[in-house]
Amino acid sequence: MENRLRQDDQLRPVTIIPNFVKHPEGSVLIQVGDTKVICNASIEDRVPPFLRGQGKGWITAEYAMLPRATLERNIRESSRGKVSGRTMEIQRLIGRALRSVVDLDKMGEKTVWVDCDVIQADGGTRTASITGAFVAVALAFHHLLEKEKIKEMPITDFLAATSVGIMSNNQAVLDLDYKEDSEANVDMNIVMTGSGEFVEIQGTGEESTFNHQQLLHMLDLAKTGIEQLFAIQKDVLGEQIVNQIGKKKVDELNGENHRSDEE
Amino acid sequence: MENRLRQDDQLRPVTIIPNFVKHPEGSVLIQVGDTKVICNASIEDRVPPFLRGQGKGWITAEYAMLPRATLERNIRESSRGKVSGRTMEIQRLIGRALRSVVDLDKMGEKTVWVDCDVIQADGGTRTASITGAFVAVALAFHHLLEKEKIKEMPITDFLAATSVGIMSNNQAVLDLDYKEDSEANVDMNIVMTGSGEFVEIQGTGEESTFNHQQLLHMLDLAKTGIEQLFAIQKDVLGEQIVNQIGKKKVDELNGENHRSDEE
Amino acid sequence: MENRLRQDDQLRPVTIIPNFVKHPEGSVLIQVGDTKVICNASIEDRVPPFLRGQGKGWITAEYAMLPRATLERNIRESSRGKVSGRTMEIQRLIGRALRSVVDLDKMGEKTVWVDCDVIQADGGTRTASITGAFVAVALAFHHLLEKEKIKEMPITDFLAATSVGIMSNNQAVLDLDYKEDSEANVDMNIVMTGSGEFVEIQGTGEESTFNHQQLLHMLDLAKTGIEQLFAIQKDVLGEQIVNQIGKKKVDELNGENHRSDEE
Amino acid sequence: MENRLRQDDQLRPVTIIPNFVKHPEGSVLIQVGDTKVICNASIEDRVPPFLRGQGKGWITAEYAMLPRATLERNIRESSRGKVSGRTMEIQRLIGRALRSVVDLDKMGEKTVWVDCDVIQADGGTRTASITGAFVAVALAFHHLLEKEKIKEMPITDFLAATSVGIMSNNQAVLDLDYKEDSEANVDMNIVMTGSGEFVEIQGTGEESTFNHQQLLHMLDLAKTGIEQLFAIQKDVLGEQIVNQIGKKKVDELNGENHRSDEE
Amino acid sequence: MENRLRQDDQLRPVTIIPNFVKHPEGSVLIQVGDTKVICNASIEDRVPPFLRGQGKGWITAEYAMLPRATLERNIRESSRGKVSGRTMEIQRLIGRALRSVVDLDKMGEKTVWVDCDVIQADGGTRTASITGAFVAVALAFHHLLEKEKIKEMPITDFLAATSVGIMSNNQAVLDLDYKEDSEANVDMNIVMTGSGEFVEIQGTGEESTFNHQQLLHMLDLAKTGIEQLFAIQKDVLGEQIVNQIGKKKVDELNGENHRSDEE
Amino acid sequence: MENRLRQDDQLRPVTIIPNFVKHPEGSVLIQVGDTKVICNASIEDRVPPFLRGQGKGWITAEYAMLPRATLERNIRESSRGKVSGRTMEIQRLIGRALRSVVDLDKMGEKTVWVDCDVIQADGGTRTASITGAFVAVALAFHHLLEKEKIKEMPITDFLAATSVGIMSNNQAVLDLDYKEDSEANVDMNIVMTGSGEFVEIQGTGEESTFNHQQLLHMLDLAKTGIEQLFAIQKDVLGEQIVNQIGKKKVDELNGENHRSDEE
Repeated sequence: MENRLRQDDQLRPVTIIPNFVKHPEGSVLIQVGDTKVICNASIEDRVPPFLRGQGKGWITAEYAMLPRATLERNIRESSRGKVSGRTMEIQRLIGRALRSVVDLDKMGEKTVWVDCDVIQADGGTRTASITGAFVAVALAFHHLLEKEKIKEMPITDFLAATSVGIMSNNQAVLDLDYKEDSEANVDMNIVMTGSGEFVEIQGTGEESTFNHQQLLHMLDLAKTGIEQLFAIQKDVLGEQIVNQIGKKKVDELNGENHRSDEE
Repeated sequence: MENRLRQDDQLRPVTIIPNFVKHPEGSVLIQVGDTKVICNASIEDRVPPFLRGQGKGWITAEYAMLPRATLERNIRESSRGKVSGRTMEIQRLIGRALRSVVDLDKMGEKTVWVDCDVIQADGGTRTASITGAFVAVALAFHHLLEKEKIKEMPITDFLAATSVGIMSNNQAVLDLDYKEDSEANVDMNIVMTGSGEFVEIQGTGEESTFNHQQLLHMLDLAKTGIEQLFAIQKDVLGEQIVNQIGKKKVDELNGENHRSDEE
Repeated sequence: MENRLRQDDQLRPVTIIPNFVKHPEGSVLIQVGDTKVICNASIEDRVPPFLRGQGKGWITAEYAMLPRATLERNIRESSRGKVSGRTMEIQRLIGRALRSVVDLDKMGEKTVWVDCDVIQADGGTRTASITGAFVAVALAFHHLLEKEKIKEMPITDFLAATSVGIMSNNQAVLDLDYKEDSEANVDMNIVMTGSGEFVEIQGTGEESTFNHQQLLHMLDLAKTGIEQLFAIQKDVLGEQIVNQIGKKKVDELNGENHRSDEE
Repeated sequence: MENRLRQDDQLRPVTIIPNFVKHPEGSVLIQVGDTKVICNASIEDRVPPFLRGQGKGWITAEYAMLPRATLERNIRESSRGKVSGRTMEIQRLIGRALRSVVDLDKMGEKTVWVDCDVIQADGGTRTASITGAFVAVALAFHHLLEKEKIKEMPITDFLAATSVGIMSNNQAVLDLDYKEDSEANVDMNIVMTGSGEFVEIQGTGEESTFNHQQLLHMLDLAKTGIEQLFAIQKDVLGEQIVNQIGKKKVDELNGENHRSDEE
Repeated sequence: MENRLRQDDQLRPVTIIPNFVKHPEGSVLIQVGDTKVICNASIEDRVPPFLRGQGKGWITAEYAMLPRATLERNIRESSRGKVSGRTMEIQRLIGRALRSVVDLDKMGEKTVWVDCDVIQADGGTRTASITGAFVAVALAFHHLLEKEKIKEMPITDFLAATSVGIMSNNQAVLDLDYKEDSEANVDMNIVMTGSGEFVEIQGTGEESTFNHQQLLHMLDLAKTGIEQLFAIQKDVLGEQIVNQIGKKKVDELNGENHRSDEE
Repeated sequence: MENRLRQDDQLRPVTIIPNFVKHPEGSVLIQVGDTKVICNASIEDRVPPFLRGQGKGWITAEYAMLPRATLERNIRESSRGKVSGRTMEIQRLIGRALRSVVDLDKMGEKTVWVDCDVIQADGGTRTASITGAFVAVALAFHHLLEKEKIKEMPITDFLAATSVGIMSNNQAVLDLDYKEDSEANVDMNIVMTGSGEFVEIQGTGEESTFNHQQLLHMLDLAKTGIEQLFAIQKDVLGEQIVNQIGKKKVDELNGENHRSDEE
């Protein structure tokens, strides 16, 4: 822990560069500390077989690392001929998280393919992917709105993710880099919405455990970090898109409140 | 929800049949409601390359379903030529959870292969796998102790898992069967140790979210269920093995307290 | 051979437990000595491409072993990414044998998927699979009859299988267990119908050979064993299903006699 | 059956061209009617892991068809990325059959790789492969003898194979071509040794069965055909190699008689 | 270089045996020195998805070697489960070259599958494949013409290929055998049309380079060799087919001249 | 061709950003027009099996595209489970080209893994990869020199590549972008060394051909372009590294001249 230069509840520097690659409908490069991920959102005008004919859309994600994104070079998954368990777990997580803030019924029969390609890894690649992918997807939907291929913004809320951990000295810290992550006893990834709800909590004690109080403290730290990420996302997306998402959300929440009155 | 015949905080009936298959060092059939999983623990006298020469052991898990464990027949993963993302995610979870309550240094250079094969599925197959696998692993280590291939029980604590969910009527329920699981807005799997610590919390809102209060309520329900699972595990393992695990734990905790005084 | 406790012409104890798994249309657990196989028959409402539009059905089989069904743990075929030659040979044999006693024209455009999953292996897994799979298929067709999805029982005769071998002392023995099988000079699998005809004879001298007289003796032993298996199958299926199959057969044989008069 | 121009007990014309390809230690082109198979035997100076350090050799076979060996072009198995069940079944049969007439202990730690590549198929490709492969293996061992890499001929007897079938008119015929094979009710492949023993009997009634008497008749026909194949093999191999194999056999049989006196 | 018995600008002996395999629409065995390749052309009555509905045809090639075509036995690509980079590069080259002399619009919606299977390799297998495949394709189109399935010969010109190289003594030589190829500093494959145009030039200095003058000299040698190959192809195809191709070409060239006048 | 804004003999704008990713020993981002490739060179302290114990090094390359580098999203090769023929062809080309300007004997038993990952594609990705990879490899070797892990720069000359093509109006143009490439009749990739020698010439007429004069003109254009690329490479590498490479070359050329005097 002697190397951590920032506070325990402080994120690493975060930058999101929009329109990083020219062909995708939405594209960003997100940098969280020394972790750099290209997040591209591509629109396809059809849905997977299990959704055909229902008028609904789908969002799916793929995640990969360049072979030398890491300290040691990794064998390409295309050379191995198969995708690792870790990769599958991460891409399922990204897809699931994004779908929780998109109203699939308002997309029409379209698929958003989200590609998160890590070009440099220093811990937190999956949470950086989610935070960046949200922006790429928002840009892609905005593009569809401008082309009048959809009628309203299907995104219902903001979405970002970060990690927290408990170090060997029992201290909880926010946004672990690779070194911290390898030394942590407990590692937790948290995905939250702009309205402060949880989408996903994945807390893992590899050869270790954690108690209730530690859990609560980690959730607190995560919330602090994620709120900062929302501010950065909004800054990158600009007022027009933020309003599209915001408007959506307020209307919906009203509707939901109304419904919950009836229950 | 009209079909749920038991209380919201009640587990389905649980049975664990030890020594179900004759060849493995440890073997059980666990039944949780209509979910039935064969859990076999096999001992191999070597470790994966990354551990060789360190005198440590390893525990790894594989998970599969018979093609007709489910309502509709599934294509075998051996026929597809690849293992699905879901399968990989589950087997990584099982291995990680078991390793958190085993002192790998006390195993010697051995690998425990845990095979969880679902022969009938009705929700909660991954948590039933963990709960059953713990017993199979304990039986396998007991077998090694009796053969004097290890000197002391390397298991440091009990381990069990269950699921909780939030249904569409916002009610939180314990131990979801397949039907409940498909209707739930939020699904959470929780793995805990005998001393009440968390090993793993995986909470997921597929196309939905959950708030802080709901999280706390789900954790409460899970704890209630898992305590019942410990009682069943102890009953199956018998006093001798329970004491071996218990003794281990008390000594270690003393040791740990001692160490933490120094920090 | 000193370990064989039963007579040379005696089967190991055989048990068939019907309805072992709840989802499949037909399901049994067959135990032959210490060999245990779950046989599930699933009905699918379509046929493979080469049969489409002909109004005929199809029966196909898959065979697998749990990794620790055997003395030493085997790597899963799903992890290897391919199915072994032995597995393919066995599943082709099971499918072919079952099709020889089913009138595919009377099934309609349906496929019966037969899954034989060995949970404990002690020799004779392929012949136990055929004997058990026949019962599972009969249960599945009976289920279709009761649901009025087919008009008559498409099974034309009983079907069972066993193995015989010639040991190193030149003695021929019935129903080899794993130890006997590894020591045998010649190994023969025989599949027969209720009317005493051969469906399949596979005799193999691995690094050894056999003469005409030995062949005849082995066929004799096999017949004795298979007749006992028919009795057990009939007992499990019960009078109603046995009569459906029996009726079918008598009618057909009459028809066949008639036709053979004309030739 | 109207098209069969030869007698029911007559083979199609058979030619074996030795040294067909220049690199392999043993190589033939065998033609049986319009079926043409290149059989190459390659010597490798090591054995598979399970035999290492035992001073024994091994023989293994691979079988394939050119894509357009058949009426319709087949997709290459290398393009599919996997080998079919039929291919695996055939190559296991060829290897097993060859090993039954070779004294593996006299080979030293060598592997014979037998490649049977069908360049034109018209029925009976697996039996032609065995008959041709035997000659290729004999040529390869003769080559090793001449190079003084082995001390004596490890082949203990001749080996050949043919097919017999029962046609829809109940007639049994020898050496089925493709058209006959597709129309046959029963198809049987028989592998025999020079001394008249069976190595392998594989009789199959696809959607049909056969009785005891038909079995005996088919075995008779096969014997007639296989004896003609031995004559052709001897003619191709020449007196020197035939004597090497013959000498071997007589000595061994004497030895075996001696041993069987003691039993 | 001491072993080269022919002149530097001399081809090895070339033979092309037409109708080598009976099922394909076009089939030859081409021998160039000790290199022997079976080239089969199969007609399929449909085109790949990207061409459907355009009334155009397609030509695609596959290339493989028997495992023991070479000095050392190679593992089959079907056993590896994947096709090597070298194989893919060669089959892409063969397909591309053939398409350059076929008017795909005149084929109708048909695919020509060209299979080049090397049964014995001694250098130059890819160029022998192209030279032989051209003849097989011409035979297949002639077959279609005779069956009146196409109206005119779609082949627009002759096509053949050879290799040239620069040896370590800086000498350029034509048509390298395996030994020469392994010793050469530079290796070049050239594909030309009957009218003397280049279709493909692939010159490679593996751990070496070549200058402009050497390039020109190699192109000269190649031209000399390819002209001899055209003469052999014409001899095999016979006057009728040669005229069909020739006629085509003259008409087209006139047309082209006309067009180029306008530019 | 109406869209081409630059002269026929003019390259697109080229930028090379060194040290783009932090972990690899050598790393650049090369941009050629809208084509952007990350080229990473990684050092591994061992060589492939075929080189072990010879004291020599090896250079190998892998090439891939992000799924949305192109106009339409491509399926990942890791998801397909295999690498396409095009990819294999390109990575073999890159590796071969780099090895032609590196003295493998001076590397020691090390492997340089070159990863070329296209993040945005607009034609010429393989030639941009070679040009960028050369710089990455030079940076990696410089890093080894500074760490004193090698004694002298093993690079013997500069290396760069470009494409030329013949458009449908018979005009030859330099450095084709994607649109030009798809419209070109002939496409040629040329790799050259700093001393003006060819390393690789790959000229292809897809459904078209080219004559001798056109070939000479294309080679001329390529030379013009490649000389500009050398200037950019030198600018990025800086005087110190350029001198290391230059010194090497002059010495060697002297040596070579000397040797060629003797021939």
